Amino acid sequence: MIGGIELGGTKCVLAVAESPDNILIKKIISTKDPNSTFSEIISFFKDYEIESLGIGSFGPIVLDSKSKDYGIIVAESKEGWNGVNVVKNLSNICSQIILDTDVNAAAYGEYNYGSGRKCKTLVYVTIGTGIGAGILVKGKSHIGNFHLEIGHMQIPNLDNSKGVCRSHGNCWEGLASGPAMKSRWNIEASKLGKRHVAWEKEAELIAFGLVNIISNHSPDKIILGGGVMKQKHLLPMIRKNVELLWNNYIPLGSVSNLIIEPGLGLDSGIIGSLELTKN
Amino acid sequence: MIGGIELGGTKCVLAVAESPDNILIKKIISTKDPNSTFSEIISFFKDYEIESLGIGSFGPIVLDSKSKDYGIIVAESKEGWNGVNVVKNLSNICSQIILDTDVNAAAYGEYNYGSGRKCKTLVYVTIGTGIGAGILVKGKSHIGNFHLEIGHMQIPNLDNSKGVCRSHGNCWEGLASGPAMKSRWNIEASKLGKRHVAWEKEAELIAFGLVNIISNHSPDKIILGGGVMKQKHLLPMIRKNVELLWNNYIPLGSVSNLIIEPGLGLDSGIIGSLELTKN
Repeated sequence: MIGGIELGGTKCVLAVAESPDNILIKKIISTKDPNSTFSEIISFFKDYEIESLGIGSFGPIVLDSKSKDYGIIVAESKEGWNGVNVVKNLSNICSQIILDTDVNAAAYGEYNYGSGRKCKTLVYVTIGTGIGAGILVKGKSHIGNFHLEIGHMQIPNLDNSKGVCRSHGNCWEGLASGPAMKSRWNIEASKLGKRHVAWEKEAELIAFGLVNIISNHSPDKIILGGGVMKQKHLLPMIRKNVELLWNNYIPLGSVSNLIIEPGLGLDSGIIGSLELTKN
Repeated sequence: MIGGIELGGTKCVLAVAESPDNILIKKIISTKDPNSTFSEIISFFKDYEIESLGIGSFGPIVLDSKSKDYGIIVAESKEGWNGVNVVKNLSNICSQIILDTDVNAAAYGEYNYGSGRKCKTLVYVTIGTGIGAGILVKGKSHIGNFHLEIGHMQIPNLDNSKGVCRSHGNCWEGLASGPAMKSRWNIEASKLGKRHVAWEKEAELIAFGLVNIISNHSPDKIILGGGVMKQKHLLPMIRKNVELLWNNYIPLGSVSNLIIEPGLGLDSGIIGSLELTKN
């Protein structure tokens, strides 16, 4: 039996499975303070014999297993979590733990079982409480020296609005995440009507970041997930903005083939976390 | 004997060598219209028995050797060159030609012989007539589906100035390349005094792009080359801006170790083009 944990900043998905595409039990809990979250996770797994555990965690988190800081979250991206060691706190569940970022895990899920199959260069972007991206090149995560933090790119801020990122203010996440929308329009994004001008603005802001991802990675596919993308009318608006901005500079093919929905719906992250056990 | 061609948008460097670090003859010519440029290149090589030829070319250019368009420049990034096949036009020099972008070639040069040795993730950025970057992951160029076009990222344009990119106006290259500086200040950048406010602005604009590269690749080193970087006072100003913008979000170590000069001076590109013959 294998275990999977998708540890997000808002919610945490837990699963016990025979294989990534055969989940036996799944549970979703809220991500609270570290101690109570870890207790709840450990309690979920205690009745199962887990041979290998894959964790896709929010970050920034140290992925280098040779580092003395392996598994530690290194910024206050979620209150109370700076300095917390995710791997050590979960080491009682089983001895073999494989860690990656939550977005890399989602990319692994889509690459192996979803809409990113056979992509040489695959990008999975989540746009929700935060913005992040996992990138696989020939099926392996591109993490560089630490790991990617694509949500913290600098993008145009045409109306000089005040972003919400604690570290950077007006970075991509600061301007285009769910909380940024709430701050800009004084209402939860999910409560805005489809024709509200907010979606035009949001599509433009997301497109700025996607153009930068295209410039930096020339991907085969960009899969857009996360809470904000539950608004189905947003995807075609984003595609249109990317097309206009990119202005056919290098051939992208059809943007409808390039920028797509997850094939696994909301399960990319947990299926990918389970898939990590194969690494 | 091996041959190398660094085909830039402004100048073209030609070399005959025993190995990349043992160049026998080198010549620099201006890049003019395709026909006269190719004639001059072919004439340079005609007296030598070249076994293998490495070409680092400006782009956008088709790198996929299986494509029917292999070797073709696909945009009017330089007047008169859209649709020109670089490889076919040089195929008389020798039968074995290895093509990559000019910036990837420069990155190979620095990785093998310069200041990028042993870097798992190495970025070489040129800031000159255009802006581009070559990225090596474990010593192999990261080209994605087509190749990277990092100069065409969307970055903040705080003073709403008019960029010079033919395709995008205000992209990174449009705002921060050499021609962009000339357009902004009505004078060649090289004639501006060191204390001119232009350099503060330039450092800020370059830093926006570098922060995006850090967000997208988490590199071990970023090597800055190209004509604009000949202004030695600019490098420390760029580092300071990157440090301020990044705000210590994930540990970068010392920016003086992260953002550096080429170890090979102006020869990164030609040495790297010769190195391509080993691929």
